[in-house]
Amino acid sequence: MPIAIQGDEGSFHHQAAQEWFGQPVELTTADTFGAVFNALDNHTAQTAVVAVENSLYGSINEVLDLIQAHHYPIVGEIYLRIKQQLIGTPHTAASDIKYVYSHPVALAQCEQYLDAHFPNAQRVEYHDTAASVAFIKQKNGDPAYAAIASAGAAKLHNMPILASNIEDNKANFTRFLVIQPDGTVPKNANKTSLLLTTDHTPGALARVLTLFADANANLTKLQSRPIIGDAWKYRFYIDIEVAGESLHQLLTHVCQTGATVTVLGEYVAGVTH
Amino acid sequence: MPIAIQGDEGSFHHQAAQEWFGQPVELTTADTFGAVFNALDNHTAQTAVVAVENSLYGSINEVLDLIQAHHYPIVGEIYLRIKQQLIGTPHTAASDIKYVYSHPVALAQCEQYLDAHFPNAQRVEYHDTAASVAFIKQKNGDPAYAAIASAGAAKLHNMPILASNIEDNKANFTRFLVIQPDGTVPKNANKTSLLLTTDHTPGALARVLTLFADANANLTKLQSRPIIGDAWKYRFYIDIEVAGESLHQLLTHVCQTGATVTVLGEYVAGVTH
Repeated sequence: MPIAIQGDEGSFHHQAAQEWFGQPVELTTADTFGAVFNALDNHTAQTAVVAVENSLYGSINEVLDLIQAHHYPIVGEIYLRIKQQLIGTPHTAASDIKYVYSHPVALAQCEQYLDAHFPNAQRVEYHDTAASVAFIKQKNGDPAYAAIASAGAAKLHNMPILASNIEDNKANFTRFLVIQPDGTVPKNANKTSLLLTTDHTPGALARVLTLFADANANLTKLQSRPIIGDAWKYRFYIDIEVAGESLHQLLTHVCQTGATVTVLGEYVAGVTH
Repeated sequence: MPIAIQGDEGSFHHQAAQEWFGQPVELTTADTFGAVFNALDNHTAQTAVVAVENSLYGSINEVLDLIQAHHYPIVGEIYLRIKQQLIGTPHTAASDIKYVYSHPVALAQCEQYLDAHFPNAQRVEYHDTAASVAFIKQKNGDPAYAAIASAGAAKLHNMPILASNIEDNKANFTRFLVIQPDGTVPKNANKTSLLLTTDHTPGALARVLTLFADANANLTKLQSRPIIGDAWKYRFYIDIEVAGESLHQLLTHVCQTGATVTVLGEYVAGVTH
């Protein structure tokens, strides 16, 4: 059964899916996150792996909203450090490179590196990092063309990495969630994602957070959704290091304050690859 | 003195800058948010207008981090509803359109519209929405070519709008901040952006939020920065509806709990255009 991802083969989504399953995976690739969830709706995929936040660019609210709208459980998470590679034709000397192709975000992430090492190379924006590797491969070994993409994209297209980990900011992590319509809570679950809506009372949020602290449940994420002009009422995406029976007892107390809680998934806290 | 923005003339950043000043503005355009702040550093611009969050895509942490790193005050905010326009050559009939050019994000925002009205038109990704209008203009009136961009881009390139407000999700708002190195706090400021770091004690965050509620200071944004594995310690970007003397009294109490606060700017709460 294929895994649904947004983007192409050789993308970071592809890498995240492989890290989760620990082996090569068959993919259903989609242009948009909406189309990824449609693949789950249509049963053309049993699992989706979706980016949900990046340490530089923040949360992808669209993905959180899709998870909530489709009621599919989160069954796991994976963190990837985003490492960009300079990829070119074999035996390319640095001085030969005249064009560097990649997605605008990847080009921006390597701007200082390119300024320092290839000040005269033209940066050319392309719609996808992995596709930019496929594009320069078609140049039949012309050393003027290089691309920036993941190590997975280099491997996929059998193109050599000319310089490794050229991203300017090494604190660039993306968190991916694993979504399974038929997913069940793993026995050793220790983390929960939930959506919290408080009532309009001043201090309502503080009361909920006090309950979390009293239950020794550490927050790892707390993010308001932009509700403008609705004073004292909040919707939050919350990740909390508790699951199972302790979670259910805690949420009973939380709901007694007048708050509403939707559990989006209980799972095992992920590690960074 | 020009206004620094990320992106091109005719972009939503350009529109936000015009809404702020209430008149046409001279621009310094930059490829990245880092370059926008460099323009302030080099005094080639006195003001920057930067997108900081979108209702679908969340916060742009990179911008928040740049504001903090450069210590430049936020002096205002503007909300824009993101409206996409189908732009083409004059007298184009819908059936003539074979190619729709735009930035991938804009194409994705109009996917359902295109599926319904132009199922056979090829969607072609371009690096910038406004630049895609310039591109199709060069086709010398060939009605096969259309683009998706803002009304400002249509006006800039003197190209007609064939269909208005074609974005699928009308709840698509972007919030922009106005940054001025020489900025001062406006007299009628009623909103503050700040960065809060709590200590490692369970309940530390709840204590701070209780102080906010006791002071009748409504939160409009509360967003943790992803700090992984640092239990009970939080860094938050917070927007709060208080400023001036009341703010300073409140922050004195907050700091007495062991929390650290950096004020990023006090300004007048913005309206939606």
